[in-house]
Amino acid sequence: MSVIGTSVPRLEDDRLLRGRGRFHDDIVRPGQLWLRVVRSPSAHARIRGVDTSAAERMPGVVTVVTATDLPGSPRIPVRQPHPGIDFTPYLQPPLATGFVRYVGDPVAAVLADDPYLAEDAADAVRLDLEELPVALDAHAAATGRLASRPDVPAEVGVVEFGYGEVDEVFATAPHAFSVDLTVGRHSGTPLEPRGLVAEYDERTDRMTVWGATKVPYFNRRVVAGMLSVPEHRIHMPESDAGGSFGVRGEFYPEDLLVPWLCLRTRRPVKWAEDRTEHMIAANHAREQRHVLELALDDEGRLLALRDEGWLDTGGYIRTHGAVVASLTAAMVSGPYRLPACRSRIHIVTTNKTPIGTYRAPGRFQHNFVREQALDIAADRLGIDPVELRRRNLLNEAELPLRRPMNIFGAPMLLDGKDHLAHFDSSREHFGFETWRAEARTARAAGRLVGTGCAVILEKAGLGHDSAVVDVGVTGAVRVSMGGSGSGQGVETVMAQIVAEEFGIQAADVKVVLSDTDILPDGAGSFASRTTVVGGTAVKSAAEAALRKARRVAAALLEVEPEQLVARGGALLVADRPETRIGLGEIVEACFTPRFVQSGEEPGLVGRGTYAADGMTYPYGVHYAQAEVDPETGLVRLLRYAISYEIGRAVNPRMVHGQLYGGAVQGIGGALLEEFRYDERGTPLSTTLNDYLWPRATDVPDIQITIHEDSPAPGNPLGVRGAGEGGTAGVGAAVANAVRDALQLPGDVGTLPLHPERVLALLRRKITENAGPGSEPRKG
Amino acid sequence: MSVIGTSVPRLEDDRLLRGRGRFHDDIVRPGQLWLRVVRSPSAHARIRGVDTSAAERMPGVVTVVTATDLPGSPRIPVRQPHPGIDFTPYLQPPLATGFVRYVGDPVAAVLADDPYLAEDAADAVRLDLEELPVALDAHAAATGRLASRPDVPAEVGVVEFGYGEVDEVFATAPHAFSVDLTVGRHSGTPLEPRGLVAEYDERTDRMTVWGATKVPYFNRRVVAGMLSVPEHRIHMPESDAGGSFGVRGEFYPEDLLVPWLCLRTRRPVKWAEDRTEHMIAANHAREQRHVLELALDDEGRLLALRDEGWLDTGGYIRTHGAVVASLTAAMVSGPYRLPACRSRIHIVTTNKTPIGTYRAPGRFQHNFVREQALDIAADRLGIDPVELRRRNLLNEAELPLRRPMNIFGAPMLLDGKDHLAHFDSSREHFGFETWRAEARTARAAGRLVGTGCAVILEKAGLGHDSAVVDVGVTGAVRVSMGGSGSGQGVETVMAQIVAEEFGIQAADVKVVLSDTDILPDGAGSFASRTTVVGGTAVKSAAEAALRKARRVAAALLEVEPEQLVARGGALLVADRPETRIGLGEIVEACFTPRFVQSGEEPGLVGRGTYAADGMTYPYGVHYAQAEVDPETGLVRLLRYAISYEIGRAVNPRMVHGQLYGGAVQGIGGALLEEFRYDERGTPLSTTLNDYLWPRATDVPDIQITIHEDSPAPGNPLGVRGAGEGGTAGVGAAVANAVRDALQLPGDVGTLPLHPERVLALLRRKITENAGPGSEPRKG
Repeated sequence: MSVIGTSVPRLEDDRLLRGRGRFHDDIVRPGQLWLRVVRSPSAHARIRGVDTSAAERMPGVVTVVTATDLPGSPRIPVRQPHPGIDFTPYLQPPLATGFVRYVGDPVAAVLADDPYLAEDAADAVRLDLEELPVALDAHAAATGRLASRPDVPAEVGVVEFGYGEVDEVFATAPHAFSVDLTVGRHSGTPLEPRGLVAEYDERTDRMTVWGATKVPYFNRRVVAGMLSVPEHRIHMPESDAGGSFGVRGEFYPEDLLVPWLCLRTRRPVKWAEDRTEHMIAANHAREQRHVLELALDDEGRLLALRDEGWLDTGGYIRTHGAVVASLTAAMVSGPYRLPACRSRIHIVTTNKTPIGTYRAPGRFQHNFVREQALDIAADRLGIDPVELRRRNLLNEAELPLRRPMNIFGAPMLLDGKDHLAHFDSSREHFGFETWRAEARTARAAGRLVGTGCAVILEKAGLGHDSAVVDVGVTGAVRVSMGGSGSGQGVETVMAQIVAEEFGIQAADVKVVLSDTDILPDGAGSFASRTTVVGGTAVKSAAEAALRKARRVAAALLEVEPEQLVARGGALLVADRPETRIGLGEIVEACFTPRFVQSGEEPGLVGRGTYAADGMTYPYGVHYAQAEVDPETGLVRLLRYAISYEIGRAVNPRMVHGQLYGGAVQGIGGALLEEFRYDERGTPLSTTLNDYLWPRATDVPDIQITIHEDSPAPGNPLGVRGAGEGGTAGVGAAVANAVRDALQLPGDVGTLPLHPERVLALLRRKITENAGPGSEPRKG
Repeated sequence: MSVIGTSVPRLEDDRLLRGRGRFHDDIVRPGQLWLRVVRSPSAHARIRGVDTSAAERMPGVVTVVTATDLPGSPRIPVRQPHPGIDFTPYLQPPLATGFVRYVGDPVAAVLADDPYLAEDAADAVRLDLEELPVALDAHAAATGRLASRPDVPAEVGVVEFGYGEVDEVFATAPHAFSVDLTVGRHSGTPLEPRGLVAEYDERTDRMTVWGATKVPYFNRRVVAGMLSVPEHRIHMPESDAGGSFGVRGEFYPEDLLVPWLCLRTRRPVKWAEDRTEHMIAANHAREQRHVLELALDDEGRLLALRDEGWLDTGGYIRTHGAVVASLTAAMVSGPYRLPACRSRIHIVTTNKTPIGTYRAPGRFQHNFVREQALDIAADRLGIDPVELRRRNLLNEAELPLRRPMNIFGAPMLLDGKDHLAHFDSSREHFGFETWRAEARTARAAGRLVGTGCAVILEKAGLGHDSAVVDVGVTGAVRVSMGGSGSGQGVETVMAQIVAEEFGIQAADVKVVLSDTDILPDGAGSFASRTTVVGGTAVKSAAEAALRKARRVAAALLEVEPEQLVARGGALLVADRPETRIGLGEIVEACFTPRFVQSGEEPGLVGRGTYAADGMTYPYGVHYAQAEVDPETGLVRLLRYAISYEIGRAVNPRMVHGQLYGGAVQGIGGALLEEFRYDERGTPLSTTLNDYLWPRATDVPDIQITIHEDSPAPGNPLGVRGAGEGGTAGVGAAVANAVRDALQLPGDVGTLPLHPERVLALLRRKITENAGPGSEPRKG
C-alpha cells in the first residue's frame, strides 16, 4: 500500500466546496464589537495630536484608543534576529507614536457596536499631522539623499553573504558584465483579506483568538508577552483562510489590537480588513534594486558574482526582519559552479507600506537578476545562453556541494543530484529548442517573439514542527500538527503521511491544524516547509503511536512486535493475516491497568517533533515564450513550462497545482502587479482595478513536470518542498523572453514589464540601435 | 519554601464565591433544544408499547425517540470487570427495551424548543405497560422468593474476599458472636443536580459536551464507542459542579442521549435534571444487609471474621460494577489483627433505582457492622470495648502488613505505621474516657446518653492519572490534570504541588481540570485518589518541566543544572542568587533553534503519568456521644470527634473541611437520609422534604485532628487521600453510641436510626429486659 505519491482528492475540499469552511468573517460572537483602525493619510509626518473626542461621542462607539492607551510601549518583534543588525529603532508599534511613516500606519482604533458605526467614527478621529519630506526610493534613501525618518538613518543594515576572494577575481577576470535591475513592489494579495476575532471567557480566564493563520504559535507568544497574559490563556483554534502566500497572518498591529481590546472591554472584538485597507496595511513585498556583476573566463565559465542590492522595507521592519534580504543574498549563486560570490543587500526604510515575505522571497528577485545577467553575458561572449548555463551548472560529480558559508545558522549544503542533467532533460522534454526556433521564425516575420529560460535553486525546510497522533476506541486516527491551512492542501498531505504509516486511507485520518490547545507548540506554514518539516514531525508521531500499538498488540496476540504490520485499521501478522487485532481494541487495552505505566502517556498517542538541521534545496527550470505587441507594449505569454525536482511528491496533483498557481502569481509579478505611489507617497494601487491580478486570459497553458530523481537526504520522507518553485523563476524567464523578443542589447530594467515599461524599452532600443557601437544579438 | 502543608486559601473560591463558576445550567447555546426524559412510572413491567404520536404533534417538539431509534443496542458498561461475574444481562440500556425495571427507568426522550414544552410533551408520551411483581428486598430476591427480572436470576453474582481457614476457626473458636445489620438506601444527593449540554460544530466535525464531571475521559470513550464517533471529535471542557461524592457524572443514560441527539439534530441539546428526577434517576447507594460473625478467644483476641452480605443494586448494574461489593468485602477486616477472614457479598437486583458508589462505599457499611459486632463481643466477653479493640489493633511491630489477598489486582499491603498507637493517642487527645464518664453519669440520672467509637481503615489511590505542566513566555505556570472539580478544592491542591516544585505561590499556578483537548487522557476524581494519584502525576509533570528548565538555564548561565534551584519564578544558583534567569526568558530560549530538538516537545512542557501499583491506606477513629429522646426517639449527637492519619496534608484546612463535610454526610446516613419505597416500588423520598439532609442543628461541633505520622510509602508526596474518612466511620460510631445510650443487649438493626426505628428499639429493649436471661451491660 502506498498512499504517499498518490493524487488522492483533497480532504479539505469536502468542507470548502460545500461552503462549510470557517473563515474569520464566519465567526460571529454574541455581543461582538467591531474594530476599525484609523490609519495615517500621510506617508510621513510628525503626530502633533490625535483628537478622538468627536468619535467618542458618536452613538454606538464604545471606545477610541491611541498609542498612549497601549500597555507598555510594545513594538512588533522580528521572528529571528540577524547578527550585527539592531532592528529595534525600526520596529513597528501597534499604534503609531510620535510619527507616522506610511499611508496606512495605524494611529488609533475605534470599537463600536457595528462595522459601519466604527468606520464612521474612525473618519471622525482628527489627526493633527505635521507633514515631513517623504522618501520613496530606497537607493536614494540609503545613500543619504532622502530621509525616511527624522531620527535614525534610513538604512537599517546590510546583509552580506558570500565566500571567496570576489574583488580579486573581478580585478583579473577576462570578462565582467553588469546589470542594474529592479523588481517592483507587489505582494501576495490573497483572495480573502485578513481578519481577527477575539473572545474572552470569564470562567476559564481565557481568550479565544480566531484568524491567526500563518504562525499562530509565534503570534500567541508575541501577544502573550505584549499583554503579559500567559499564552496558555490564549486559545487559537484552527481556521480556514483564503490564501496566505507568506503575507497573511504574521504579527501585524491588529494582532495586538484585537486581543488587547477584547481583554480591555471583556467583549468579543472583531476586525475584518477591507480590500483597500488590505492593499495598504498588509505586507508588501519584492521591491529591490540590484547591481549585479558576473566575471567569466573566455570559455564562459563563471569566475565570480558580485551583487549590491537595495531592499525597500517600507516604513518599518516587520516580523521577517532580515529574512528576505538573507534569502536574496545567500542564494543568488543559484545552482551554478561559482568559485567566488558575494551579495550585499542594504535594508532601507522608506515611507511606504512595510514589506514582508511573499512566495519565493528573494529568489524571485535574484533569479531575475542573475539569469538576465547570464543572458547578457552569453550575448556579449557570443555563447548560446543555454550553452553558457550548461557550462556552469553543477553536475552529479560535484554534488552534494557545501558552499563555504552558513545560512540561518546552518551550513549551506546543496543536496541536489545533478542540476546539469535536470536542465538537459527538461529542455529536451519541453522541446525548448523548438520554442526558440519558432521565435526566430516569428521574429524573421517581423513579430516580437522571444524565449527565455531560468535555472533556479529553491529551498525549504528550516526550523521545527511538532505533531501528535492519537487513536480512539473506534480505531479512528487523528493527527494534529503545527502547519496552518490556507487552501494549500496541508490536511490532505498530512493525512497521506499518517495513512501510509497505518496502512489506511487518507480519508480515514482526521487532521487538526494549529489548534493551540490540542497541540501545545507548532511552527505554522511558511517557506515551503510544511511538508518537509511538519510532515516529518507527523511521520515521527505516527511511528511513535504505531510503536506503542505494536507493543500492546504483540502482548495481546502473543507474538513479537516485529511480526506485526499495520493494515486496514488493524495490526496483523503479515503471513498469518487472521492473527490480527483492530486499532480500537488496542486502544481499549491501552487504558487497562496492564498497559498504563507511570511515565508513559496513556492511550494510543504518539508525539513527534522534528527540527531540521539545515535546509533542503529543490531545483528546476522555467521556460517562457513571449510576444510583445509593438503598438501597445502588451506582453503575451505564448508558452510556459516548469520542470521541478522536489525529491518526492506526496500528492502529485497538488504539487502540480502549487506550481501552476505559483507560476500565475509569478506572471502577475513579472507583467502586471505593482503597488505604485505618487510623489507624496500616496498609494495609487488600492483596488483590484488598479492593482492588476492576472486573469485567465493572461495565463497560457503551463506545462509542468515534477521530478522525483533526487530524494532529499535530510528527511525520511525525501521531500524537498514544492510551494514556491512555481513562482521563483517567472520574473527571470519572462524577462529573458521579453528581452529576446525585443532583442535588447541591455537589460529590461524593471519588473513588472507592463505595457508602459515595454514601450519605453522599445523606444530606448530604437534609440540605441540608431547610436554607435550597437550590434545584433544572438537569440 | 514549603507550599505543601500550608492552608493557602482555595483558588477556586475567587471564581465560585463571585458567581463566576460555570455549572452545566450556565451553558446556554444559541438554538439549543431541551431534552426531557420520559421515565417509567412502574417499578417492574413489560413494555407492550410506547405511543409518541401525541407528543410529536405538540408545538415546539422536535423529536421523540425510544429505544428502537438508538444506534445498535447500547448498554452502559462497567468501568472495571470483576473476574467470574458476567454483568452483561444486567447492564442498563440508555432507553429501556422490553422491560422497565425501576420507577424512573428512561423509556423515551423528548426534544423541544424549551424545557416546559419538553416536559409537557414527555407527559403526553403514552406507555403501555404490563405490570409485573416487584422485588424490593435483595435478600429475599437472592434466595429466590422474589423476582426482580423475569429473564435472569435476581442475583448477579457473589463477590468474595478473604484468607485463612475461616470455617475451621469458627468450628473450634471459644466464642462466636453474630450480628444481622442493615444499612439503608441513601446517597450523595449533591446540591446541584446533574445536567449536560452538547453542541456540534460543523467546521471541525466535533462536538463539545459540557457536564461530564467525575470521569470525563471514561465517559468520552464510552460515548465514542456507542456512537462510533472517535473520541477526538468530542471535546469535554472543564466545568464546575456543585458536589459529586461519587454520585455525579459517571456514565448515565443521559450521557448517551444528549450527545446522540445533538449529533442527530445537529443542534445544541441541553438537559437539566430537576430535583425529583435526581432522586429517582441518579445513583442510590449503601443499601446492604450483613450477617457478620466474629470468633474470639477467651482474652478477646480475634480469631476470625465471617461475613455474608446482600447488596441491593437496584434495577441494573451501573458503571461501578462490583466495586462497592469488593470494597465492602475486601476491607471488612479493618486495621485489626485477624488470622482468618472471609466476606461474601451477594450482588442482587431489585426493582429500585440502580446504585453506585458514594463517599466511602462499602466502608460505611462494613465499619458499621464490624464495629457494632466488636461492641457486642466486648459486652458478651465482659471486656471494655476500648480494651477489646486495643488488644486486636495492629501495631508498629506488625506493620506494614501484607494481607494474603489481592484487591483490584494488586496485593493488599497495609502500609500504616501503628493503628494501636493512633487509637490510644487520639482517644486521649479527645478525652474519650471523660465522654464515657459523662454518659454514665447522665444515664445514672435517667437520660439515654451513650458513647461509641469506630476504628477505621480507609483506602485511596488506585489507578492512574496524567498531567501536563507548561510555562509560557510571561513565566506563568499552568498545570492541566485529569482530576475534576466539584467544589472539593482540587485546583488549590494541584497548584500547591506545582508551586512547591517551582518555588512560587500557589496562586501563581493556573490549573485546568479534565479538559480533554488540553490533556488527552486523565482519570477523573473518585475514590479519594485525586491528590494521591493525580497529585503524583502533577508532581512528576512539574519535575519534568523543571528538568528541562534547568538544562536550558544551565546552558544560558553556563553553570551545571544541579547548581540551580527554582525560586520566585526564576532559576538561580543557590549561593549566588544574582546568577539567575527568569522562567519567561527560559521559555523564550526554548523556542530558539539552539534548544529545539527532534524528538523533544518544544517549549517548556512537562508531562507526567502516574500509575499506582497498589492502594494506600489512611486510617483513623470516629468518636460519638449521643442522647436519645425517649419520647420521640430522636437521636441528638452531643459530641463528635475524628482523628485521621493521612500521611501528609497538602492543605490542612481543606483536609479539615473534607473530614467535616464527610462527617455531616455520614450523620445524614446514620440518622436521617433514606430512600424509601412503598410496596409497589414507588419511591417515597423524591423531595428534600421527604429525604432528610442533615441541617446545621443536627450536627454538633465536630473535633478533628489530622495526623501526619505515617507518610504513604507508595507515592513521593506521602499522601494517603483524605476524601472519605470523615464519612466512613459515622454509621459505626453513631450506632455504637445509640446502642450504648439505649444499653441494648443486641444490635441496632438498621440505619438510619431515625425516630421510628429508635422508638422500636426502645420498645424491643423493654420487652427483652422484661424477659428471661437479660442482664445489664457495661458501657
